[in-house]
Amino acid sequence: MTTESAPTKAPAKAPAPRSRARMLELVFPKDTNYHGTAFGGFLLSLMDKAASVAAVRHAGGAVVTARMDGVDFRMPLRVGDAVALDARVVKVGRSSMTIQVDVYREHMASGEQELATTGTFVFVAVYENGKPRPVPPLEDIGNDEAWGSAAGRP
Amino acid sequence: MTTESAPTKAPAKAPAPRSRARMLELVFPKDTNYHGTAFGGFLLSLMDKAASVAAVRHAGGAVVTARMDGVDFRMPLRVGDAVALDARVVKVGRSSMTIQVDVYREHMASGEQELATTGTFVFVAVYENGKPRPVPPLEDIGNDEAWGSAAGRP
Amino acid sequence: MTTESAPTKAPAKAPAPRSRARMLELVFPKDTNYHGTAFGGFLLSLMDKAASVAAVRHAGGAVVTARMDGVDFRMPLRVGDAVALDARVVKVGRSSMTIQVDVYREHMASGEQELATTGTFVFVAVYENGKPRPVPPLEDIGNDEAWGSAAGRP
Amino acid sequence: MTTESAPTKAPAKAPAPRSRARMLELVFPKDTNYHGTAFGGFLLSLMDKAASVAAVRHAGGAVVTARMDGVDFRMPLRVGDAVALDARVVKVGRSSMTIQVDVYREHMASGEQELATTGTFVFVAVYENGKPRPVPPLEDIGNDEAWGSAAGRP
Amino acid sequence: MTTESAPTKAPAKAPAPRSRARMLELVFPKDTNYHGTAFGGFLLSLMDKAASVAAVRHAGGAVVTARMDGVDFRMPLRVGDAVALDARVVKVGRSSMTIQVDVYREHMASGEQELATTGTFVFVAVYENGKPRPVPPLEDIGNDEAWGSAAGRP
Amino acid sequence: MTTESAPTKAPAKAPAPRSRARMLELVFPKDTNYHGTAFGGFLLSLMDKAASVAAVRHAGGAVVTARMDGVDFRMPLRVGDAVALDARVVKVGRSSMTIQVDVYREHMASGEQELATTGTFVFVAVYENGKPRPVPPLEDIGNDEAWGSAAGRP
Ligand SMILES: CC(C)(COP(=O)(O)OP(=O)(O)OC[C@H]1O[C@@H](n2cnc3c(N)ncnc32)[C@H](O)[C@@H]1OP(=O)(O)O)[C@@H](O)C(=O)NCCC(=O)NCCS
Ligand SMILES: CC(C)(COP(=O)(O)OP(=O)(O)OC[C@H]1O[C@@H](n2cnc3c(N)ncnc32)[C@H](O)[C@@H]1OP(=O)(O)O)[C@@H](O)C(=O)NCCC(=O)NCCS
Ligand SMILES: CC(C)(COP(=O)(O)OP(=O)(O)OC[C@H]1O[C@@H](n2cnc3c(N)ncnc32)[C@H](O)[C@@H]1OP(=O)(O)O)[C@@H](O)C(=O)NCCC(=O)NCCS
Ligand SMILES: CC(C)(COP(=O)(O)OP(=O)(O)OC[C@H]1O[C@@H](n2cnc3c(N)ncnc32)[C@H](O)[C@@H]1OP(=O)(O)O)[C@@H](O)C(=O)NCCC(=O)NCCS
Repeated sequence: MTTESAPTKAPAKAPAPRSRARMLELVFPKDTNYHGTAFGGFLLSLMDKAASVAAVRHAGGAVVTARMDGVDFRMPLRVGDAVALDARVVKVGRSSMTIQVDVYREHMASGEQELATTGTFVFVAVYENGKPRPVPPLEDIGNDEAWGSAAGRP
Repeated sequence: MTTESAPTKAPAKAPAPRSRARMLELVFPKDTNYHGTAFGGFLLSLMDKAASVAAVRHAGGAVVTARMDGVDFRMPLRVGDAVALDARVVKVGRSSMTIQVDVYREHMASGEQELATTGTFVFVAVYENGKPRPVPPLEDIGNDEAWGSAAGRP
Repeated sequence: MTTESAPTKAPAKAPAPRSRARMLELVFPKDTNYHGTAFGGFLLSLMDKAASVAAVRHAGGAVVTARMDGVDFRMPLRVGDAVALDARVVKVGRSSMTIQVDVYREHMASGEQELATTGTFVFVAVYENGKPRPVPPLEDIGNDEAWGSAAGRP
Repeated sequence: MTTESAPTKAPAKAPAPRSRARMLELVFPKDTNYHGTAFGGFLLSLMDKAASVAAVRHAGGAVVTARMDGVDFRMPLRVGDAVALDARVVKVGRSSMTIQVDVYREHMASGEQELATTGTFVFVAVYENGKPRPVPPLEDIGNDEAWGSAAGRP
Repeated sequence: MTTESAPTKAPAKAPAPRSRARMLELVFPKDTNYHGTAFGGFLLSLMDKAASVAAVRHAGGAVVTARMDGVDFRMPLRVGDAVALDARVVKVGRSSMTIQVDVYREHMASGEQELATTGTFVFVAVYENGKPRPVPPLEDIGNDEAWGSAAGRP
Repeated sequence: MTTESAPTKAPAKAPAPRSRARMLELVFPKDTNYHGTAFGGFLLSLMDKAASVAAVRHAGGAVVTARMDGVDFRMPLRVGDAVALDARVVKVGRSSMTIQVDVYREHMASGEQELATTGTFVFVAVYENGKPRPVPPLEDIGNDEAWGSAAGRP
């Protein structure tokens, strides 16, 4: 038995999602420590990367990490788990952006995603010389309903 | 001036997207070759990873890459570009799944995504002992309209 | 002209420093982002690693990262900089340990170290099955005077 | 009992093999997925690298991957296996080169190599600005008999 | 103009080269230090890997590095250079094997290989429990003439 | 029960240790080979890195590895072990520096450090163009007593 579904054609050029970034990563043996679970630094790196893309998309240019806050690790990640990250700019100042990152652990067999960690980052938009650069105000994001809902996850 | 937008609350547990996976990656200096653009193996690895998650989500268990086909690299990727991948199961046999992977290059400053590469993979679901395992038929994916549309990109 | 200094003989076995860990790392091109400075995740990973060794040395067994707090990135790190980390258990509960991590940036040519970041982690000692395990109380560390002093840096 | 064999002296400078590249790699835990075998992206990266060296040696300058075709993965690779790759330019156009890559799996204990995968790549020679650059015609390779024969493997 | 050369068919199974290993690697930005040349540890790792494959092929089982000796780095390696390694068992004891590793630097544009470094390793064959295991005596290697000659390089 | 110890305040700027570098690393699964212990190249890379920092701190500028000598691997390193390195310039010529590196293996549960390996490197200070640059003579290092003593380990 073979079932098939024709993919729709993708437009050649389109704007990227604004002020938001969704990532998906797999936990591999190389990411784990001596007792078989991912080490904290693995997840912190992923969160920083997701947050930086959301910030770049809002700022339309280079950004740097200024602060990281209150990351609670509620459950271990194991080899074979997928990790889904959803990062969104939730507040902007003159040149700074506050980004919330939600992290979901997905178990391969059950196919269920569970909120594993959240964290808050501050990024600052910078000029080439590293000096702060103003950022646009925060607009209402069109696909807002998807934020935090299962349908909107990567 | 400070603008703010309250994040909606995420439900603790929810099913992962079925038969599909969307990834986002950044091109770093470590991914580039002697002339400053990403080497082909970097993108092939990402495509294999995205396809494998889509396959695992369809099969509900372990899968292996059985075949890769017809990948055309239409444009170079540079340090600082983001790479958005959208992988979807488009056909299933008894134990095999055909996955199409679309790859978009996103330029940081313009914020525009452009179709850079597409490719087709075959994955096979396997038991613990590596022998082929049957997979469910392909259902109509609910958020189908998002496939190939800009709104559905990570 | 040749000057020489005979190394003293190292004892074969000796206890490791208690409740503390000092690390030294170099910033390589692979650790940098599109504008030539180390990305935040690089430093967060190093801090997590230093803190975990301090925690293991206090607990005498396996630990997991439970929380990370208030990391401020005060200055960029560039390729060729050295990064010196000093992690110390500053507070213990029943099974949890609070670890402060100080990070110094060292400029190759000037040979000067400058406080670049500090952060606070909570680690929890665990049994094989991942359940919390009690830890000993915090003793007065013998080489305390070295903490925070230049002489005690790696 | 000790046996010895004097190594012959290597000449200081000599031309590299033309239009061909042979590589040898080991499968390490870091290259494997959740069920203990190498993931497809690991092998695709190696094949791209071997093909690119064969192409550079033919073109005498920079090349980029333009296309990858029909790679079938016939057998899993496990930690401890060696992987021997033999890449050869088999066809040239004006600026494009078609490279065939044969991949052998070598089992440590038996010392036997077995054809595990083959694939075909197209590389294009490029100028500094990324525009296609003409390549020389394909000459008869001197050590041709070694191609595909066990004696010629790395 | 298109020239073509039919590849000969590869036999499915054949013995691997005995007591010898030839590797080829590319210098990527990730392997370089702050002044744009490969760091010593990069080459030492490659040499250890090439030597270990030669040792495994001689011993027909697991080996460990016991000693490394007299490695002189005569010339820097730059991004884009290829590195060709030729490792050969030159002496065997009861459980130990002495391996000589020759390293050639290959410049992409000129296509010339130049002897860049040589080094000597001792590996010891071990049982599962890590205890020394006897190895066979050193036989005369068939394709001996290729050792050190340009034709025999990967 | 909760015990607490107030950290002393760190001075913002201070000279780095002269002519010496102490590192601490963890053995992760990614650093191990097919039989579960670290491969030689892992340790050789760490030793080269520690030695290079000691050399840079003495030279006050860029250095390159010129020679590595007589490294004996006396005991295997396993996942979860910590590795403490202590590198010190022990002799200087005009532009060359001889660095001794002592490597201690630390077992997590026992908290004991044991001398696992020693090695000797020669580094050469270089100008931007890679030509040898004179280095200062070797001064008596203030915290000399700590060299080789347990108290001085990272
Ligand atoms: C490959 C590339 C240089 C071709 O540029 P172009 O402007 O399309 O050049 P042309 O149309 O003149 O084609 C040049 C040659 O390449 C061949 N070619 C181009 N794309 C090809 C493809 N996908 N498959 C096979 N051959 C291809 C053409 O047939 C032509 O061959 P010939 O010179 O032997 O007759 C360009 O598409 C590119 O830069 N792609 C990205 C490469 C890359 O970065 N790869 C890694 C991605 S991570
Ligand atoms: C893929 C694999 C499990 C197939 O095993 P097999 O014994 O050949 O199984 P079968 O012949 O019964 O085929 C099973 C299914 O896979 C499909 N298949 C197998 N090889 C295929 C290929 N190269 N291309 C496309 N489909 C393939 C078959 O058509 C069949 O499909 P169906 O069940 O939908 O009808 C086996 O070849 C394997 O383990 N390969 C290595 C996978 C791997 O490790 N990849 C990464 C390499 S680094
Ligand atoms: C090291 C290097 C700069 C020396 O350059 P050179 O032109 O040979 O310089 P010189 O002959 O004037 O020697 C300079 C000093 O280095 C010492 N030296 C050079 N090679 C040496 C070696 N293999 N072992 C020990 N000392 C060495 C000389 O004794 C001399 O010492 P002194 O100044 O204290 O008297 C050069 O060989 C080089 O660049 N090598 C590659 C380094 C590298 O890239 N390493 C990493 C490889 S992946
Ligand atoms: C190598 C090792 C197995 C030797 O074990 P051992 O109990 O010392 O064994 P023995 O004394 O019986 O020596 C066995 C052989 O190894 C040789 N050997 C041991 N250490 C050696 C050294 N440092 N240099 C040269 N040869 C050495 C002996 O001469 C003997 O040779 P032979 O059998 O040919 O006569 C052991 O020291 C070990 O496990 N070391 C760590 C290896 C490792 O993990 N390397 C990677 C580090 S990151």
